[in-house]
Formats: sequence, C-alpha cells, structure tokens
Amino acid sequence: MKKWTRKDLLGLEDLTREELLLLIDQAAAFKEISLRPIKKVPALRGRTVALCFLEPSTRTRASFELAAKRLSADILSFQGSSSSLVKGETVLDTARNIEAMRVDVLVIRDNTSGVPAMVARGVGCSVVNAGDGSHEHPTQGLVDLFTIREKKGRIEGLNVLIVGDILHSRVARSDFWGLVKLGARVTLCGPPTLVPPVMETLGAKVSYRLEEALPEADVVIALRLQLERQQERYIPSFREYTKLYGIDLEKLKTAKPDLIVMHPGPVNRGVELSPEVADGPQSVILEQVTNGIAVRMAALYLVSGTHHGQTAEVPEPSPEGVET
Amino acid sequence: MKKWTRKDLLGLEDLTREELLLLIDQAAAFKEISLRPIKKVPALRGRTVALCFLEPSTRTRASFELAAKRLSADILSFQGSSSSLVKGETVLDTARNIEAMRVDVLVIRDNTSGVPAMVARGVGCSVVNAGDGSHEHPTQGLVDLFTIREKKGRIEGLNVLIVGDILHSRVARSDFWGLVKLGARVTLCGPPTLVPPVMETLGAKVSYRLEEALPEADVVIALRLQLERQQERYIPSFREYTKLYGIDLEKLKTAKPDLIVMHPGPVNRGVELSPEVADGPQSVILEQVTNGIAVRMAALYLVSGTHHGQTAEVPEPSPEGVET
Amino acid sequence: MKKWTRKDLLGLEDLTREELLLLIDQAAAFKEISLRPIKKVPALRGRTVALCFLEPSTRTRASFELAAKRLSADILSFQGSSSSLVKGETVLDTARNIEAMRVDVLVIRDNTSGVPAMVARGVGCSVVNAGDGSHEHPTQGLVDLFTIREKKGRIEGLNVLIVGDILHSRVARSDFWGLVKLGARVTLCGPPTLVPPVMETLGAKVSYRLEEALPEADVVIALRLQLERQQERYIPSFREYTKLYGIDLEKLKTAKPDLIVMHPGPVNRGVELSPEVADGPQSVILEQVTNGIAVRMAALYLVSGTHHGQTAEVPEPSPEGVET
Repeated sequence: MKKWTRKDLLGLEDLTREELLLLIDQAAAFKEISLRPIKKVPALRGRTVALCFLEPSTRTRASFELAAKRLSADILSFQGSSSSLVKGETVLDTARNIEAMRVDVLVIRDNTSGVPAMVARGVGCSVVNAGDGSHEHPTQGLVDLFTIREKKGRIEGLNVLIVGDILHSRVARSDFWGLVKLGARVTLCGPPTLVPPVMETLGAKVSYRLEEALPEADVVIALRLQLERQQERYIPSFREYTKLYGIDLEKLKTAKPDLIVMHPGPVNRGVELSPEVADGPQSVILEQVTNGIAVRMAALYLVSGTHHGQTAEVPEPSPEGVET
Repeated sequence: MKKWTRKDLLGLEDLTREELLLLIDQAAAFKEISLRPIKKVPALRGRTVALCFLEPSTRTRASFELAAKRLSADILSFQGSSSSLVKGETVLDTARNIEAMRVDVLVIRDNTSGVPAMVARGVGCSVVNAGDGSHEHPTQGLVDLFTIREKKGRIEGLNVLIVGDILHSRVARSDFWGLVKLGARVTLCGPPTLVPPVMETLGAKVSYRLEEALPEADVVIALRLQLERQQERYIPSFREYTKLYGIDLEKLKTAKPDLIVMHPGPVNRGVELSPEVADGPQSVILEQVTNGIAVRMAALYLVSGTHHGQTAEVPEPSPEGVET
Repeated sequence: MKKWTRKDLLGLEDLTREELLLLIDQAAAFKEISLRPIKKVPALRGRTVALCFLEPSTRTRASFELAAKRLSADILSFQGSSSSLVKGETVLDTARNIEAMRVDVLVIRDNTSGVPAMVARGVGCSVVNAGDGSHEHPTQGLVDLFTIREKKGRIEGLNVLIVGDILHSRVARSDFWGLVKLGARVTLCGPPTLVPPVMETLGAKVSYRLEEALPEADVVIALRLQLERQQERYIPSFREYTKLYGIDLEKLKTAKPDLIVMHPGPVNRGVELSPEVADGPQSVILEQVTNGIAVRMAALYLVSGTHHGQTAEVPEPSPEGVET
C-alpha cells in the first residue's frame, strides 16, 4: 500500500509522480461516493477543517466546504483580507490561533505567493494551499489531471495546450508541473506579453499562434482572463484577444475530433470560449466542477492522516465505512 | 399513500389541492419533531442543500438553514447579488455549477420574478423558490395555510382578509392561490394604488375600507410595508396608511372575537400592527415562525425524493427514523 | 452530584463559588475530549445554538462555533449591527423570533452593556453573554480562571495582576469577579485615567506603577489596548503607554520566575507585550485559546440542560458517550 507522508499540500512542483498518482487515485475512490444518493463518509468525523480565504472566492471555497462536509469534518470559516501592515506576521499569528483551536487542516488562500508555505512552516497542523498569488493552485491542478485521465484514459504522451495568461496564472503553473511529471507534452499559448519564454527552459513548448498549436492538442485548457485585474495592460483589447486566442466552433474544426476543452471557471463567455464551445459536447467544464470535490476530499483526507502521531497509512474508505 | 411527483416547488399557483394538503400534512409531521428536545431526523443525511440568496434575507434564509440541518442535510450557502449584465445567463451558469457539485436541492431567492422557474428548467436538481420578485413566496404561503388550519381546524369556508400592499407582495400572491385552492374566501384590502382590481376576476373580493372588511374576517394577514422600497410613492403618508389600514386594539373591537392576526414578519410596529396587537392574544406571528421550519422541512424533503432515479414515494418519517 | 440550575450565563458577578467551579470542572472534562483525534461528543445532538454577534468578532465567534460543533449541536449564525433606533426592542424582537425557531441556546454579543440580560428576561431559551459593552465577558473570564488553575494548580491565594484599560474592559470585570470569588488577590494596574479607584472598595488593590506591582504577581493578565476605540484620549501616547505598562523581557526580570503571562488576544505586539514575551516560555496565550473551546463547550452544555422541562442534573460526558 502506497503511503502519503507530507503534512501539507502546497504545490504540485514539490510532489513526486507517485504522490500525484496517489492523490488522483484517492480522488477517484471519493468520486464514486459523490455519485451515490448518500454522499457522505465518516472518514474525518470529529476532525476540524478551517477554511481561511484571505482573498474573495466562491467556487473554490464552496468546493472545499462540501468536500469537508462529505467527509463529516467540522468546519470553521474565516474570510476577509489580511492586514496590509505586517502581513506575514499577522497571517501567521492568525494561523497559530486557529491551530490552538485544535484544527487539523488549515486551508488557506491568499493573494501573496508563498503565504501558505510560510504558514505551514509555522504551525503543526496540516496546510492545504487553495491558491496563493500567481504561484500555485494545486487542487485545481489535480482536478485537471484527474479529469484528463478520466476522459482520455491516460496522461502520459498527451499533447496538452494551455491558452491564455500564463504569466499570472497559478492554475497554469500547477497544471504545468503536474502534467510534466505525469509525462504529458505541454504547450503554452497566448500573447507574447503573457507567456514567459523562460517556461521553455522548464520543458514546455511555447506558441504565440493558436492556429498552429490547436491542431496538435489532445486537451486544451483555456484560462480565465481576470477582467478585474487590469489585464488589458497586457493585451491590445478583449476583442483582439478573443479573435486570436478565443476558441469558437470555427477554430474547433481545425482540432482533433476527440479534443476535450477545459476551463477552471468561471468562463467569460464570448471571450476565452464561445458559448457553443463552453456548452458543447467536447467541453468537460462541469465535470471539472464535480471532480473538484473528489480531489479536495482526497487532499483533506490524505494530509489529515499525517499528524497527531498517527501513521501515514491511509486505507481507502470501504463501503462499510459509509453512513447509512 | 399519496405521492409527490414534482421536481421543484416554484409557486402555489401551479399546485393542486392534493399537493397543497400533502405539503401541509408533511409539515405537521415534522412540526412534532421540532417540539422534541432532539430536533433532528436523518431523512436527508448525505444529501446537499444549496441556499442561493441573491437578495438580502435573514429570516427566510435562517428558516431554510435550520430546516435543512434538522433533516441532517449538508448545506452550502451562497449570498450576494446577481450580475446586472446578462443576469439570466449568469444565474443559470451559477446554478449549473452548483448542480455539478452534486447538490440535491437548490433553494433560490432573487429579486426578479421568474428566475427560480428559469433555473429549474435548466438544471436536473430540485429547485425551491424562496421568493422571486413580486411573483411568489410559496413556502411563506404554505406557512400561512398550515398555521390557519392548525389554529382554526380548517381552511375551507373561512373568510381570510389580506391587508396592505397587494400589488408588490409575493406573499399575498402565494397566500391567495393557496387559500382559494383550499376553499377559503379571500378579501384583499388596501389603498386603491396598491390593490390591483384585476384580482377580482381571479376570485378575490377587493375592499378599500378596512372597517368594512375586518368585521367579516376569521383570519387577517397584515403585509409588511417595505419601507425600504419607496412605497411612499403609492401612499399619501405612513401616518395616513396606519390610520386607514393599520390594525390596533380599537379596530380589533369590531372584529370577530376569535379572529387570528398573522404577519409574515418582521412587523413594523406601529405601522401595520400596533404593538398591543402584534403581541396580543390573537396574534399567531411567532407560531408562524415556528411553523416556517416545519413547512420548509416538508418542502425540502418532498422535492428531494423525486430525482436521482428514486421513486417519488415518500413515507412519513417514523419514530424509528429519529436519531437518539 | 453538583447541579447547574441557571437558565443563562450572563456574568461572573452573579455566580457562586460553587457554580464557578462547576463550570471549570466541566471545561476540564471537555478539554480532554479536544485533545483526542476525534474531537466530538453527541451531548447536544439535535439541539440548536444561535450565535447572534451584533458587534464584529472573529475569535470569540469561532470559539463558540467550534464548541457547539464539537458538542454536535446545530448552529444558526446571525451577524450585523443592531438597529440604532429602538435598539432594545429590536434586539428583543429578533431574539423572540430566534426563540420561535426552537433554538435552545442563544449566544449574544452586543456593544451595549445589559443587552444579554434584557434578552434573557424576555425569552424562554437559554442566553449566554459573549461580551456586552464594557460590562462582562463571562466565558473569557472562565477561560482565564481555568487556565490559571491548570497552570498553577490553584487559584486561591495567588496574586493576579491585571494590566491595562481596566475602565473599559469587560474581560477585566469578569476576571475580577471570578478571581475574587475563588480567593485570589487581584491588583489592577494602568494609567490613572484607565483604572477606576472605585474598584478598591470592591476588594481590588490598585496600582499605577507596573514596576511596583509586577514583582509580587504569580499571574499577569495584559489587556488589549483597543486601538480602534480612540483610547488615545486616555493615554499620552502609545509609546508612553508601552514604556510604562508594556511588558518586555527587561521588566520580566523583576518578576517571579514562575510568573505566567496571559492576554485575551489578539495581542498588539510591541504595545502590551513585546514579541519575545508574547511568544516566550512564560506565555500561556495559545493555551487560553485552546481552553476557550472547552470552557464554551461547558457553558453551552450546562445551560442547555436547564430548560424544556428537563431536570438540571447534568452528568459528565462518559467515554461511552463519545462518537466513534
């Protein structure tokens, strides 16, 4: 039996191929539970999960919340923004107070890269990174790995195309590390201002022309343009962006017929994807949402087995473990 | 055994007499549970209820939340306002994402009439309308039906007087449909600007003079003046409104001695009702609050039995089903 | 077996020595549960606890919320500020509505002294004061009593020094009453503008010079300077305050070697305590946070045993009562 030994889940860059597979396999086991009418297991009953979202979030917070509830954990939710003064210290103080409430897992989102890792070093409880600045969003990366494997049967050898604002995207970064470790060939595509050439030295192929990259792809992951983050500084106009990098039915005609279309959500319809593509037969966007809960159940479950002096051995939940 | 077959609860206008009675009977069974020290049944354990209140609400949200918790459901709560741009599409996108999280029942409140029905057509999970614009507020209507039957022993043949802003009130609309279907005689009373004459063609009696209508009534439902919605455009002044349509002890003297006084809350004391009437022996306002939870338990329970390929047959919760 | 008979917990001034000990002993029993991996008992399963925080709060709300969850209670959470108009009536109306939802315990925080007591007189459910104006914060006082007894083995005969804004501090007031009833000698220390001389008539010693009071102390409780409440009107400057009343390593040298340092949190580092003291070996601040949950579990558990026609006899939770 494979074992999970890390206290924290901070990024996919740190993980081995075996650890990535362990997370995905665990998610697959939990997904089966989510398809039953009674979507609840007692795996984390009596454990406490704190959700500390220091940056606004609806979907990721909801996904973690449902994941924790379906594992029967107790949940404590913190929101708001972290202090602008001595930020690091304040976040760490808050984390130590949360830990003192005998919290088992602290899920943290922050708009500054590195905050979850700093917190993880300062507390004894497990820390799960729910997105930090433009660094990593490891559970979203795992969602994408899990969804690709589920839909295509494998990850190794696939051509995966990530389109959009690579420069600022923590999703792109987590996707990239996970895909490369599991043997996919990754192409990054977008306007030159938004695709850092340095990624080529890390093993990605870089393209500035979607019409060249799309026909090769088995999977395309369109990233959300963060309209609220003044990305217009990096692109001539949204109309221009959509014309060059938006995916519509016309462009899909040039792609492989079994291409799957992914997006971390929420989609700016008519910008990254046309409505027909977002809702079309090749889109697996809503499946990503469903898989998000299974992946987060797996993450919470695996890290919570590593402290309180317990062994890191985590058996898969058996049917007998299910509440009736 | 009677069966509930509707996926959704969108309004009382759609329901048959039998469906209304099924809901009220189910609420009565659940009310008994709420009076025990251990107010919890495992009926919806492992099911997920999403509360999506796109318009501010405290009481209705709290009532639905407690109803879901006392049925042992897991709850996911969304708040905030829906986008002002492509509103319908945005709400539907949000709903499809919530559905993808394997939510069983989506409770939705929106300030636009028809949004819950639009969402219900677009998703496979059950939808319960928690109030949409000035259209319907079906669970509040059911609370009133249940409370009247509980207090008066019947609904058929009663004279029910609804006083206030009929024009904008979704509570009045749901009350009206439910009362008429169950055989009550409904009189609508208020200033001519706030009582649409068209209601007469639907079977209501319309009166502009409370002193004429009140002596006939077995039940009076005073509606809340939504002070925050600039209703002053429709009435000369609050003082004038209170003089003509507010109910105080003096006016109660002209009423039947066993008249019961209802209000959906929160009461503007001294406007719709004088404090002596709101807190007096004929007021059943707090009983309405208690019944609100039982009615919402019934609604969540019945609609959640209709999907996931289950039969629509919903046995009443037996004492053995109660947690100890 | 000792018995708890009060419906409410409004302040430590009202309690007897026996009642204080009953609460602390109950907290000790619950703390043991919080140290297990499965931190949950079914003691309040099927009961409802409403958290009504009409003044912003993160830590106390979180502590009550986790306490209620670890007792398996259902929770209803209200926030926001109470109306500025007919405030008392509005709060009481809200409380009566919450009670009508069959809530067992209403936890209330308000910035006006006396609001929890007023509510408690108006409702049949139990009320727990989570801090009212500058009156009392009884559960924080109990946390301090419990922590002192745990760390020093006793309370009677100890010299306890409370430093800071005594005038406005509800924590100081609850600490004072609890400590005096359990036989400690209490010294209040701070700037003359912030230490009311009347406290001497109630049995406290008053000192304006920390260098005189600190060497005698077995326990020091530093109060938080509420920077947001314009306390600068009462002190020449924060720098001056810190110089005179802030505790740093230099001042600690004059204290007993086994002095323990307490603070209700959050600490203004560098103001009331230097970082080295706040995080040092004599600090028990994080232990206070851990104990906060056990104390609030005890408070919720004891008051909830006194109504609904039940006897006030509350057995300690047995190991068999623990969920597995």
